[in-house]
This record gives sequence, C-alpha cells and structure tokens, in this order.
Amino acid sequence: MKGFFKVMPLERVFELAPGFGTVGTKTVALMDADLRILAEAVTAPCDLPGFSRSTMDGYAVQAASTFGASQSNPAYLEITGEILMGEAPEIKLNPGEAARIPTGAMLPGGADAVVMIEYSEELDATTLEVHKAVAPGTHVVEKDEDIKKNTLALKKGARLRPQEIGLLAALGREQIAIFKKPKVGIISTGDELTDIATLPAPGRIRDINTHTISAMVKTAGAKAVSYGIVPDDFEALRKACERAVSETDMILVSGGSSVGTRDLTMDVIRSLPCSEILVHGLTISPGKPTIFARVGEKQLWGLPGHVTSAMIVFDRVVRPFLESFSGLSPSSARRFRIPARLSRNISSAQGRVDFIRVRLVLEDDGTFIAEPILGKSGLIRTMV
Amino acid sequence: MKGFFKVMPLERVFELAPGFGTVGTKTVALMDADLRILAEAVTAPCDLPGFSRSTMDGYAVQAASTFGASQSNPAYLEITGEILMGEAPEIKLNPGEAARIPTGAMLPGGADAVVMIEYSEELDATTLEVHKAVAPGTHVVEKDEDIKKNTLALKKGARLRPQEIGLLAALGREQIAIFKKPKVGIISTGDELTDIATLPAPGRIRDINTHTISAMVKTAGAKAVSYGIVPDDFEALRKACERAVSETDMILVSGGSSVGTRDLTMDVIRSLPCSEILVHGLTISPGKPTIFARVGEKQLWGLPGHVTSAMIVFDRVVRPFLESFSGLSPSSARRFRIPARLSRNISSAQGRVDFIRVRLVLEDDGTFIAEPILGKSGLIRTMV
Repeated sequence: MKGFFKVMPLERVFELAPGFGTVGTKTVALMDADLRILAEAVTAPCDLPGFSRSTMDGYAVQAASTFGASQSNPAYLEITGEILMGEAPEIKLNPGEAARIPTGAMLPGGADAVVMIEYSEELDATTLEVHKAVAPGTHVVEKDEDIKKNTLALKKGARLRPQEIGLLAALGREQIAIFKKPKVGIISTGDELTDIATLPAPGRIRDINTHTISAMVKTAGAKAVSYGIVPDDFEALRKACERAVSETDMILVSGGSSVGTRDLTMDVIRSLPCSEILVHGLTISPGKPTIFARVGEKQLWGLPGHVTSAMIVFDRVVRPFLESFSGLSPSSARRFRIPARLSRNISSAQGRVDFIRVRLVLEDDGTFIAEPILGKSGLIRTMV
Repeated sequence: MKGFFKVMPLERVFELAPGFGTVGTKTVALMDADLRILAEAVTAPCDLPGFSRSTMDGYAVQAASTFGASQSNPAYLEITGEILMGEAPEIKLNPGEAARIPTGAMLPGGADAVVMIEYSEELDATTLEVHKAVAPGTHVVEKDEDIKKNTLALKKGARLRPQEIGLLAALGREQIAIFKKPKVGIISTGDELTDIATLPAPGRIRDINTHTISAMVKTAGAKAVSYGIVPDDFEALRKACERAVSETDMILVSGGSSVGTRDLTMDVIRSLPCSEILVHGLTISPGKPTIFARVGEKQLWGLPGHVTSAMIVFDRVVRPFLESFSGLSPSSARRFRIPARLSRNISSAQGRVDFIRVRLVLEDDGTFIAEPILGKSGLIRTMV
C-alpha cells in the first residue's frame, strides 16, 4: 500500500473541513478584540442611536413651519430655547417655534427636522428668519436608523474589523466572546537544512520554510510554534510529530519534495495513534505532493519542500482549513477576486488546477492584465 | 483670527508628511519581525541558493550526453554514484556518466542538467537508459538564480510579509533592524459621550470613536493609547492633549463636529507650546472639519465626530502620515486600486473630493460595478 496515492481534486478536499470543528472560545475586553473572530451572535439590546439626533449645527423645527420659505420669502419662527450637547431637552416645540441645536444633540419633542445655521438668521434673541424650507427628517438621524432593537447586529464567525468593533462599542459590549487562536506546530524536515544563523556547508541550505510558514500562520491569525529542523529519519520525525500533536491544534510538516522524504512522512503519520491519511497528492500545481492526515482530532499537513510551493499550498489549501477551525464564517472568509486577462498563454495539464503567480497591470480601459511571473518554484524572490 | 480657515486640498496636505521624520529603530529576532517595517537596506552577502540544485528526483548528467535521446532511440549512460541530500558531492561527472540525485541536492561537478526519474530506467546497477533529451539547465536551479551576491535584496521601508521574511531567512539574517511602532494617543471629546459600559442617559451616546479609531490604529501597525472621554471644556481638553503630546508620537482628537467643539479644539492647540495649525479644513467630504497641527515634533489631528467620517479621514488622510512616520516606503504603502463603474450618478461640489462607500459587484464581463451605499455618515452599520 506504500505507493498508493489518494490524489484528490481541491473541491473535494475542502469538503473535509467541517469535520474538524473549531477551537474553544473566551471572553475578552472589546479593546483587545480587534481582528479576532466573534464567537457569539450579537443582537442589538437597544435602538441605535437611541434618540433622534441633529446632524448639523442649526435650529430644531417642525418642518411644516418652514414650508414655502425661500431667500425672497423667508419664514419667521420664535426661538424658544437652546438644546445642550448630551442633555435631554426639556422644551417641546410647537408649530412656528425653533430651538438652537448643535451637531449630535437630541431633538426636542415636537421637532422633526433641523434648519442649517447657513440658511437662517437670528434677527433678535427670539426671532429666527429661515431662508430655505426643510422636509421632515432633514439633518436628523432617527432613533433606530442605525440599528433596531432586537435585530441581529453581527453574526457569529465575523472578523472584528474596526467597523465591527465600533458597532459593538455602540451596543455597549465592553466584553465579547471570541474564538481562541489555534496553535499551529511547524516542523521542517530535511538532511540538507541548517539553522538560518549558521553558514550552510556546501550542499546544504538554510531553513527558510520555518520562518516563512510561521509568518503566514501568524498573518492568518493563529499562533506559530516552531519545532525546528528534523533530519530525514523515522524516529526523529515521529518524535517531533508526536510532541507537536500533543501540544498544538494543527501540524505543518514542510519538506519532502523528494519521494524518499515524502514516503518517510507517510510512514511516520501511519505510525501515530488514531491517524488516518485523508489526502495524498492534490491535482494542483504547485502542490501535487501535499499530504493531509487526521491524527486524533488534530490536522497534520505535509507541505511541499520548495518554499514558494509551500506558501501557495498554505494560502490556497491550508488557510481555509485554519480559518474554518478558527471559527471564521465562510462569508467573512471570502476573498476578493479580480478578473484579469493573461498577457500570454499558459498551458495546464488535463484535470489539474494551476496556481500561477502574476503581476497585475491596470490598463487604460480599466481592466487588468495578469503577467505571469516566470521562475522556478524554489525561488523565494518570485514571491517578493 | 479665530474663524480663519486654512482649507487645503488633499494633495497639498500630503506634501507635509516628509516634514515629520520617522520613529526610531530597533533590532529584533527575525521570528518577531513579521509584518513590521524594515529599517535597513539588505544586501545579499552570498549567492542564493549558493550552489546548483536539482529540482527533481532523477539523475544528474551532462545535457550533451542525452542529445537525440527519445523513447525509440534511448541514450545509455553509466551510473557512477549517488548524491545524498545535504552533502557536497565528491564525484565529478564526465560525458556519458550519470549520478542518482534527489530533489534539492547539490549538482556534482561536470553536471549541468537533471533527467527525471520518469524518463529513465536503471537497466542494472551501473546502466541508465534515458528516453528524453534534456537541455543544459533542465531541472536545475543555478547557484545565483534566486539572488546574486552583493545585490540589493530588500529596500529600507519594505513591509516584511511572509515572503520577505523567507528571503531574509535565506540570507541568514537571524536579527534584523525594524522601525519601532509609533504610539498614537486617542482622545474623544464631547459632553454627550459616555463610557461604553454605561447605559447612556437620554441625549447621550456611547463613545464609539475611541474603540473604532484604536482598532484602526492597531490595524495600521501602530500602538493605540486611549486617553478616554474628555468633556467640551478648555482646561480638561488642554490637560489631556498635553499629556498625550508628552507620552505619544501622534495625537488623534475625535469629536468636534459642531462649530463650538471645533473652535475649542483650535483654542487648545494654539495654547500648546510650539504648536502650529497646518490645516484647518479639507476640501474633501466627509472630512471637511479636519484639523492638522504640529505640536513640537508631534502630529495632532482633529478628526470629525461622526464615527464613519472619522474612519474615512483616518484611512484616506491620517494613515498615509502614520505609515510615512512608521518608516514604510511609498512603494510598499501603495494600495491596490480597482476601477469600477458607478451604478448611479453622484454629484460632487466644485473643488471637493468625495469619498463614497460602495459595494463592489463583479459583472459577467469581468468589470466591477460600484453601488453607492447610502446612509448618513453617522451610521456605523454603513461601514459593516
């Protein structure tokens, strides 16, 4: 069975994601929740803004009192008071009355619109000349215009960007439930690898993958735990994998571009308790030698050894699994796609999906041209 | 001079950015440098990968020994050895010779190409049948193909994404100089504001801006320091500003949508030592009442009180200043622009730049339609 390849197209692989559940949740201060993933559905406990507010400096009025007013034929209203910022007005407006109001203050009873200061003139302390008619609702935010009480404000699984943080602040959510960050263990295999601080001997190279993949894991919102460089040796790799399985939620083994190393990784996975190899080979390029296994409840991925291939497989295949496991909802995880025309023909093998690095160039007609970046997949500079 | 408005178009405002220098730098472990900004120009101290490597499992050969080989007319080579991963080969190939080589291993002297295992057959321990000719360089990464010794690998001011981290790892940069994160002080002004944990009394609203702007500051790669809510009072605001100026690099005062509060902010700025108001009013919408001042070497911004206006001004005006101050180079700061057609006409005042929130919809022909999101600028939901 050693050579048996469970080669799988990408869409079938993604069907495996829901089988892994999500990380746990915790409650944190809203101040510490930015860019985290919401672990509860948030319903508005109140209307927002909660009361009708002026959006301009001016005069609160009954709109009907201004109907027909113009520069040549102004309306005259009686100023009956002044509304202060942050206070509930005690006055109530009748037809023909007006009250001074600053931007953001609460509309008094009876008022349904605001006349801007620019379109009015105080003739004396109690007489206002209005040069422009306003319709009901002009320069006013209604009490439930932002959000209505008891409606769903944010869905579970939403990414808390600054605007979601603002909405939660508006709803008074000082504490909020978020998903914990998954811990991702990173193992680099290969007899040719040396620590980056060491000058590599001839035939050896520095361990780029640990650093690159750690950075990708952190950028994806998870914690990266490095297990260092492991030689191409069954016992050493098994020991590192066992430790990573017990300490982290997901394990990424990178290396194994050669058949020998890949077979070794497969042997190690099979030797782990409660393990099952779900995928051995993907119909994508780069990324064909990708391995995906379940070890108990943990995910173990074997990534290609070439750093750029590993990056592409992480971005296109592993990251969606990590996001799903992190609690991110599919709608929040959706990425923006930009259509573009290829500047030259690229051929692909039948039944294979190719991921090609391109440089996007904006044309004068507003469309994008995608210029493929040529270069062998081992060259990190093609990604920079 | 109180009412004097230094209204400025946006492009002239950006010309002020270089006048503020950058934050200091520090050296950190590469593992902790992800998404930070590089504070040194990095030159390659060596060729990368440093030696010619095989990119396939197969046989190192002299390409000329395979010329003319095909399925029906194979070439026969003598297997003179096996190259191990991570070792400098001791053998040297002559014409007509081949050596077993795994992916990633170093090419032996004399070899200039690799024949894939799929296109060859070992007839016996020393005889290789080759079914396909290879050109020099086939399945080989040359010793300086990724980067040449002494060439510039990364420019100062580059954002260290995973790929830049990978390149630095490849160059052996275990320690790297990065710019420190600027500290941004956030002050919310307004008599109508209450802490988000408190149920607002009628006429009052929760302080959304501190939370939203803090999250934006953190998303932009800086540290947010909150100075809480300050009432519309000269002494209180002056004290908060003084403290923020002494403790942080940039101060954001939000609030002041009403003329009264804006005048107060202006008075407070004028009262601070070594202060100069650079901008009072921008020809943009939203964001007209934006204030920009220098206080000694520090930047002080007065943002609009409406949270969505404040977000837009932060994103379009303040963030570029923050990035410049953070050391980010203009080329790394460049944002991706997507051309789109508006779904309906929008009018703008003469000489004013309008920022309109839109929803992008991808059409069948590959172009984007931008649907304006209508809603008053105070509504946080229009941003979600």
